Amino acid sequence: MIVTFLTDFGLEDDFVGTCHGVIKKIAPDAEIIDITHGIRPGRILQGALTLANTLPYMPVGVHLAVVDPGVGSSRRPLALLDRDGRVFVGPDNGLLVPAAERVGIVEAHELANPAYALSPVSPTFHGRDLFAPAAAHVANGLAIGELGPPIAVDALVRLEVPDPVVEASLLKATVLGVDRFGNVALNLARDDAGMVPGTRVELTARGQRYFAVVARTFADAPRGELILYEDSYRNLAVAVSRGSAASLLGVEEGDALQIELR
Amino acid sequence: MIVTFLTDFGLEDDFVGTCHGVIKKIAPDAEIIDITHGIRPGRILQGALTLANTLPYMPVGVHLAVVDPGVGSSRRPLALLDRDGRVFVGPDNGLLVPAAERVGIVEAHELANPAYALSPVSPTFHGRDLFAPAAAHVANGLAIGELGPPIAVDALVRLEVPDPVVEASLLKATVLGVDRFGNVALNLARDDAGMVPGTRVELTARGQRYFAVVARTFADAPRGELILYEDSYRNLAVAVSRGSAASLLGVEEGDALQIELR
Amino acid sequence: MIVTFLTDFGLEDDFVGTCHGVIKKIAPDAEIIDITHGIRPGRILQGALTLANTLPYMPVGVHLAVVDPGVGSSRRPLALLDRDGRVFVGPDNGLLVPAAERVGIVEAHELANPAYALSPVSPTFHGRDLFAPAAAHVANGLAIGELGPPIAVDALVRLEVPDPVVEASLLKATVLGVDRFGNVALNLARDDAGMVPGTRVELTARGQRYFAVVARTFADAPRGELILYEDSYRNLAVAVSRGSAASLLGVEEGDALQIELR
Repeated sequence: MIVTFLTDFGLEDDFVGTCHGVIKKIAPDAEIIDITHGIRPGRILQGALTLANTLPYMPVGVHLAVVDPGVGSSRRPLALLDRDGRVFVGPDNGLLVPAAERVGIVEAHELANPAYALSPVSPTFHGRDLFAPAAAHVANGLAIGELGPPIAVDALVRLEVPDPVVEASLLKATVLGVDRFGNVALNLARDDAGMVPGTRVELTARGQRYFAVVARTFADAPRGELILYEDSYRNLAVAVSRGSAASLLGVEEGDALQIELR
Repeated sequence: MIVTFLTDFGLEDDFVGTCHGVIKKIAPDAEIIDITHGIRPGRILQGALTLANTLPYMPVGVHLAVVDPGVGSSRRPLALLDRDGRVFVGPDNGLLVPAAERVGIVEAHELANPAYALSPVSPTFHGRDLFAPAAAHVANGLAIGELGPPIAVDALVRLEVPDPVVEASLLKATVLGVDRFGNVALNLARDDAGMVPGTRVELTARGQRYFAVVARTFADAPRGELILYEDSYRNLAVAVSRGSAASLLGVEEGDALQIELR
Repeated sequence: MIVTFLTDFGLEDDFVGTCHGVIKKIAPDAEIIDITHGIRPGRILQGALTLANTLPYMPVGVHLAVVDPGVGSSRRPLALLDRDGRVFVGPDNGLLVPAAERVGIVEAHELANPAYALSPVSPTFHGRDLFAPAAAHVANGLAIGELGPPIAVDALVRLEVPDPVVEASLLKATVLGVDRFGNVALNLARDDAGMVPGTRVELTARGQRYFAVVARTFADAPRGELILYEDSYRNLAVAVSRGSAASLLGVEEGDALQIELR
């Protein structure tokens, strides 16, 4: 059974490796796919979007995700089952819901059965002591009903995803994320913009104005030019051919960015 | 057979991947768990504490660890066997001993048999040419006595772990490490402090004084407040709720930190 | 079947994890070895040298590599077969050739068969949609001739590797790369220099002059001293014992460095 694993733990510390150890002790036959551990610390929305975007590329399995600034507080630990038979394990803070709702949640349970947790449970590392063991037991074939009492699906915590404002010739967007290459993903779909390659647009970020061209891929523009394109998860995004759009524009996750069609 | 792997190699270069390749060529059935490769370059004590702290969460197997500023010098390459049947492979610089002594070392051997090393052995990359091959052969079932001559256990190099000074109302601690979230682990156990949640204490770091509150987890304090808590490896530690204590205090590994009970 | 994987994707984003998911969905029995994902963005030469240097340490398998600043342009996607039966998958930009030519390329094919790609193929993420699926199908036993039409081996794009200038007592070198420890690899082999340990040399970098000593390993010099040594891939390299030569000299990949024998 595949266990996918997504966190904000980073790889500098032993958090991820320790969870791998916990999973393999309980479920020696589980195979772990690390989706990423580079979610920025505590950024639940970034984690939720990444989990939902990558899910179609993952084998059906147990999907363990931990971005959990409320660890040890009263937020509930969860397991969700979707219509495809995928199980999601993580905190009830909205992290799991966008991925699990792609095809629809059919069951939700609170992790409450100490038989499927380590003992004692540290109040600061539920990834190791609560979530990884639950995921491993499910990978071994445990039904999620054994993990604890059911929760009503409409009682699950949900995130607010920022909505764009789309006017006739003006799109007011929010930066969803910036990747290693400095590409800036926006909360816009191609259809919001209805733009064809070659169109020139004007961007405004942090009070500065820039020209950009609508393009299909990075190599369609000369080195250093700003492009607006549909990224591989079908968000509109801004890039600089062989450069970093995030550095040029000085933007990061959550910042506003306007696009004016001319 | 499981091979766990801990180094200061980082993941920017190919050092870790190359060792994975070496292990899988010799032992195709071995499964590798990367505990972490984020030990800071050359910090043997940080590596030793991380290996010892995470060991109980790891399946019994071969535990390969390389933090080795003395590579190529006269420091000996080692294999240790503990009472649980775990085998540790790495340099004789103190890195392996705290983990192997958790349950007790029963055998120690120098890696001296060229049949279980690559040829030639580069004087600067024993991880690839000496330690990874030895670990892989043990994962294949080789007894560690085949690796080379025995070494007396009390002749192994040992590290000095800094001791705290615990006075009536004053604890003089050393920072053991700082994690990705900026949490600051100290060389103190909860019992040294005997503190109960809600107690207010005064911290002194780099000549500055701060108030902190004893808490169970991050969410027990308002955003931005300093807390003193028992971390998931049972060290006392300092955190800032949804912030970085290391940045606020300006401390790093090895720095002094005083706690005054009021 | 082993799939090795090398990219400039980094581990902060989900690019690497998503490709792992794609591979495991198509080839559940494939085992993936991550050589590194720390190639600097778009540095094809660094990727090509790393792939070629590490290849002898990797099991024979499918060798997937993606450093692809021209993604989505007219550069061709490739599969190569070498005399050892290794298959290389990646872009036709020179990345694969130095590794595949170690023993000789026997077949080259363009990836053109949509049966072995995801659909649709995003113009900005061929790693996920084109290269990873092709590698996975080969790992399942597909002959590379099924992937698309043959390409003449001498029509493959090749990189220029900078040549050193070797004069009587002066070596003019280029920095090939800098690792985590600050060690500076040069485009020189030991034979170019013909130096014996203990020899003192003069280095010039960025207009500054430094003394260095030829040594076998880091520990052969006192802390802080510059050494010139043969690194584990048999390039001459510059290090500082327990320090960073790259920081001291202020050099990075592509910079010039002169060595004067005295």
